[in-house]
Amino acid sequence: MKTEHLSINLATVREQWTLPEAVEACARMGIPAVDPWRDQVAACGLDTAVRAIRDAGLAVSGYCRGGMFTAPDAAGREAAIDDNKRAIDEAAALGAECLVLVVGGLPQGSRDIGQARAMVRDGLAALLPYARDANMPLAIEPLHPMYAGDRACVNTLAQALDLCDALGDGTGVAIDTYHVWWDPALEAQIARAGREHRILAYHICDWLIPTRDLLLDRGMPGDGVIDFARIGGWIAAAGYDGFTEIEIFSKLDWWTRPGEEVLRTCMERFRAI
Amino acid sequence: MKTEHLSINLATVREQWTLPEAVEACARMGIPAVDPWRDQVAACGLDTAVRAIRDAGLAVSGYCRGGMFTAPDAAGREAAIDDNKRAIDEAAALGAECLVLVVGGLPQGSRDIGQARAMVRDGLAALLPYARDANMPLAIEPLHPMYAGDRACVNTLAQALDLCDALGDGTGVAIDTYHVWWDPALEAQIARAGREHRILAYHICDWLIPTRDLLLDRGMPGDGVIDFARIGGWIAAAGYDGFTEIEIFSKLDWWTRPGEEVLRTCMERFRAI
Repeated sequence: MKTEHLSINLATVREQWTLPEAVEACARMGIPAVDPWRDQVAACGLDTAVRAIRDAGLAVSGYCRGGMFTAPDAAGREAAIDDNKRAIDEAAALGAECLVLVVGGLPQGSRDIGQARAMVRDGLAALLPYARDANMPLAIEPLHPMYAGDRACVNTLAQALDLCDALGDGTGVAIDTYHVWWDPALEAQIARAGREHRILAYHICDWLIPTRDLLLDRGMPGDGVIDFARIGGWIAAAGYDGFTEIEIFSKLDWWTRPGEEVLRTCMERFRAI
Repeated sequence: MKTEHLSINLATVREQWTLPEAVEACARMGIPAVDPWRDQVAACGLDTAVRAIRDAGLAVSGYCRGGMFTAPDAAGREAAIDDNKRAIDEAAALGAECLVLVVGGLPQGSRDIGQARAMVRDGLAALLPYARDANMPLAIEPLHPMYAGDRACVNTLAQALDLCDALGDGTGVAIDTYHVWWDPALEAQIARAGREHRILAYHICDWLIPTRDLLLDRGMPGDGVIDFARIGGWIAAAGYDGFTEIEIFSKLDWWTRPGEEVLRTCMERFRAI
């Protein structure tokens, strides 16, 4: 596979580079797309980010991230909707293909995951008209169940697709191998996502054994136990032909290495799988 | 709820006490049942363990653990079956209500979770006649998806119940809140488990935020985000009226406290939820 379908999620080199530096390096090395994070955009300013990416001729496979719809009170949930509208505006300015959503975990002090899931559904429904007006698809990302409490109470692809079915046009899913590789229903749900035209993004990241940190010890594809050829085959069979995005949070390893080495390794591993 | 339905999984006090010491303490404090681990039994000898538990008048709500059916080669899988037969013998000698099974993760060097799951099914099928002859129910315990690679590739209650359906009489499930609390299908699958008479054990343990270690930072019920009243209600509605077993791996907290304090806290929390 050529690297023409490779995208680098800029969290992968967040400790090494600013957004303009990372964008310049990707362009120089022949990587055709990136997915920036909001804090990276905020750090350099939206206009600078837009110009850097446009001048480099890069595509924007997604924008990370909106979501976080769960909050203890209505004011907090309203504020989340407003913040998501700003994220949609930024994503549109950047020419992003979708806004990736990490939906939020349990509100502070709550043990009611059913209520949190209802907040997510309601928040998405409230945001969706604005997203449709902006032609910005909302990519619901199911996160690994180990994040159900504190990051995202949408934890399987089936659950994310059920949400899409309930919400309708303008919604879809971001499928990240790290979060879904274990799911016994994965093959069937990827096929369903394809039938329903819901796959907006495909992220790859490996599961390391041992995993030393719940958030920041994710693996470069090939270093862990995920079968990327198999899952990638399901994704292709589902009709997805967009970018494959490498996104790695790795405090203990990749964030400590030179950025060029990280990008070079991403390109090699992308070709290998 | 009175403590007449409380059982203590002896892993909860494994760093404080030998099996006979833990059994004596439980009996003295009015806890009516325990679930010992094989290494604890091996350390004092099976006869000593049997005598200690019988003399204390305690029930044995389960025996931890069999399983680990996945191995790179046929010899390894055969050895696992043999070892499981010994575990069944020990469980029978102890008068355990079931043998709890942690089924095993990916074999060394493998990325094929589908193959690992097939090994589990085949291993269970090979073991089942022996278990039936011994009248020892096999309790398949779905483990949290974060253990799919290295401990258990059965990761949802639905998946465990599908295995039971395929295997038939003599199989059931051990439901541990720690592993399943996040599952959007939990209520429905607990109801299914009840209808199919598959609930052999109910373990409680809380999910802490933050969780600092993937294996050994589990919480005392009440200290985390799990809604025990709700899940316990589903368990009761499913017709389960056996022991509720507290099982906590806690290197950083409970394993460092005096055993009596741990047991007293278990009793208090059990009454509170």
